[in-house]
Amino acid sequence: MFDRKSCIYQISLPLSLEMPISLNQIKAPISTELEIFEKKFRESVKSRVALLDVIMNYIVKRKGKQMRPIFVLLSARLFGKIDDRSYRGAALVELLHTATLVHDDVVDVAFTRRGFFSINALWKNKIAVLVGDYLLSKGLLLVLKKGDYDLLTILSEAVEAMSEGELLQLEKARRLDITEDVYFDIITKKTASFIASCCAIGAASTGASETQISKMKEFGMKAGIAFQIKDDLFDYGNDDIGKPLAIDIKERKMTLPLIYALSRADYWEKRKVMSIIKNNNNDKKKVAFVIDFVSRSGGIEYTRQKMIDYRNEAIDILNTITDAEEKIHLQYLVDYVVERKK
Amino acid sequence: MFDRKSCIYQISLPLSLEMPISLNQIKAPISTELEIFEKKFRESVKSRVALLDVIMNYIVKRKGKQMRPIFVLLSARLFGKIDDRSYRGAALVELLHTATLVHDDVVDVAFTRRGFFSINALWKNKIAVLVGDYLLSKGLLLVLKKGDYDLLTILSEAVEAMSEGELLQLEKARRLDITEDVYFDIITKKTASFIASCCAIGAASTGASETQISKMKEFGMKAGIAFQIKDDLFDYGNDDIGKPLAIDIKERKMTLPLIYALSRADYWEKRKVMSIIKNNNNDKKKVAFVIDFVSRSGGIEYTRQKMIDYRNEAIDILNTITDAEEKIHLQYLVDYVVERKK
Repeated sequence: MFDRKSCIYQISLPLSLEMPISLNQIKAPISTELEIFEKKFRESVKSRVALLDVIMNYIVKRKGKQMRPIFVLLSARLFGKIDDRSYRGAALVELLHTATLVHDDVVDVAFTRRGFFSINALWKNKIAVLVGDYLLSKGLLLVLKKGDYDLLTILSEAVEAMSEGELLQLEKARRLDITEDVYFDIITKKTASFIASCCAIGAASTGASETQISKMKEFGMKAGIAFQIKDDLFDYGNDDIGKPLAIDIKERKMTLPLIYALSRADYWEKRKVMSIIKNNNNDKKKVAFVIDFVSRSGGIEYTRQKMIDYRNEAIDILNTITDAEEKIHLQYLVDYVVERKK
Repeated sequence: MFDRKSCIYQISLPLSLEMPISLNQIKAPISTELEIFEKKFRESVKSRVALLDVIMNYIVKRKGKQMRPIFVLLSARLFGKIDDRSYRGAALVELLHTATLVHDDVVDVAFTRRGFFSINALWKNKIAVLVGDYLLSKGLLLVLKKGDYDLLTILSEAVEAMSEGELLQLEKARRLDITEDVYFDIITKKTASFIASCCAIGAASTGASETQISKMKEFGMKAGIAFQIKDDLFDYGNDDIGKPLAIDIKERKMTLPLIYALSRADYWEKRKVMSIIKNNNNDKKKVAFVIDFVSRSGGIEYTRQKMIDYRNEAIDILNTITDAEEKIHLQYLVDYVVERKK
C-alpha cells in the first residue's frame, strides 16, 4: 500500500491508514446518482434489432468499475447540482469506453473480459466490431439530440488523442526505443486525455467557467497519468499486490518500470534483457528474470514514486480550483486510483 | 444497360442512349469543388504520429469513387453556393465512409481493397482498427470545431441505422429467413440511410429549409436503395456486366434476386437451393446452379425493375423539390448509380 505520510496533502481519511479505500466507499455518496446514470445508460442502448438487444443486455449486466462516469459525476458536483446534462455526459463517456473495450477485445483476440466471455468470443468478430460502432453512435445521438455540443467537443479531442496514443505505442513497440518522455506522451494521450475529458465534461455539465473547465481537465490529466502508471505497475507485481501479470513483457510493451531499469543498467545486462523482450519470450524463467531485474534496479520504486507525484499534482490542482467540501470525494477517488488492487 | 425508354422521366441526356454515363462525366461539373474537397480531406487527416501520416498518405492516394462527397456537393449546389460548410460536410461523410471500409476489411479478413493491399494486410488488425477510430474522430473534430452541429446530427442518425442494418443482416443470415420486406429494411438501414444523410447534409450546408432538407433525405433514401440493389445484382451477373461475383451466395447473404426466385420456386427446387446456400457451398457447379436458378425464375429481371422503380421514385421526389437547373446533375448521378459497371 502506498504511504500516505509521504504525500504532500493530508486529507481527512474515511478509514484507518492500513485500510485502502474501496470502490464501494467511492460510490456511496453518489449511489442514487449512479442508479439514475445506469438507467439512462440502459435506455440509451435500446434497439429495435432483437440480436442487438440481447447483446446490450449482456453488456449492461457485466458492467465494469464505471470509473469514467464516477469522474464525470463527482466533477459535476463541484460546480452545481448533477442534472440531466451530467447524466448524459456520464452515459456518453461510458458508451465510448464500452465501445473501445469491445473493439480492443477483437484486435487483441481476447476471449474473456471481467471474468466473462467477450462479445467476440460469443458472437464473433464481425458482430463485435458492429456492436462497438453501434455503442459509439448511441453516444453521439444521446448528446446531439439534446444539443450538448460542448460536451461532445470536449470528448472528441480525447478520442483523437486516444487513437494517436495507441498508434504511437504500437509504432514505438516495434522499435523498442521508448524513453521516459515518450512513455509519458503515450499514456497522456492513450489514457489520461480520456479521464481529463470526463472531469471537464462533468464540470461543463453544471455550468463551470471556461477557466474552471480547463483546470478540471488538467486535474483529470494528472489523475489519468497516475491511473495508467498504476495499471502498468500491476505487470511487475507492484510489491503488495502479489503475482505480477507480466502481460506487457510478453507483448513487448515497454512501460516505466522497465524503461527506468534499462536506463540504469550496464551494457551486458541491458543486452540480455532486451534480447528477452525482443524475442517475445514467453519462457517463465526469462520473464521472471526481467521482473527481478526491474525490481533490483529500483524500477518499481521509481515508478510508484512517479505515480504518487502525479497523485499529488492532481490534488494540488484540485485545491486551486475550489474550496467546495465536495472535492474530498474526488480526492478519495484519486487515492483509490493509486491504491486499488485491480 | 438499363432501358431509358422504360423510365417515367425523360431527362436530357449528355450522351447517346447506347453509352452509359461515366463517373468522369458526373465529376466534370464539380471538378474544382472536388479538388478543394480533396485538399480539405487531406488536411483533416494530418497527424503528429509518423506511422499515422504514412498510413493516411496511403489511404488518400488510393481513394475510391467518392460517391458520398459527390452526393453532398451536388445536393449543396441545389440550394446555394458550395461553401466551407459543404466541404466540411463532404469531408465528414468521406472520413466516416473510409473508417467503415477500414473496419470492414478487418472483420472480413479482406487483404485487398480497390486493387491495393488493405490496411490490415499491410499493418495488421490492431493498427487498422485504430486507424478507423482515428478517421472517425477526425471527422467529428472537423465539424465540431466549426460548430456544424446540424450536419453531425444528420449523420449520427445514419450511423445508428447503419450498424443496426448490418447487424439485422447478420442476424437474418443465420436463419436464412429473409423476406422481401426484411431485405428492404436491411438495405435502407445499411446503405440508403447514409446516402440520404449525404443529400440532407449537402442541402443543410447551403441553407435549405427544413422541408427541403427532409425531402432531400427522401430522395437520397430512394437513390441509396437503388445503389444497393445494383450492388446486389453484381453477384448474379446483372445480364450485361459479365461474370457474376457470387460472393453473397458463398457468404449466405440473401439478396433480392434470390429472395424473389425462392418465393416462386416449388418445394423441391427450394429445398435444393436452400441446401446449397445453407452448407456454405463453394463448389463452382453448385454456385452456378443457384445463379442459373435465380436467372430462370426471373429474379434478376424482377430485381432490375425494382431498382429502376426506385431510380424513378428518386427523380420524382427531386422534381417536387426544386426547378433549379442544377438538379440535372443529381439525375445523372442517380443514372450512374444504376448503370455503373462496377
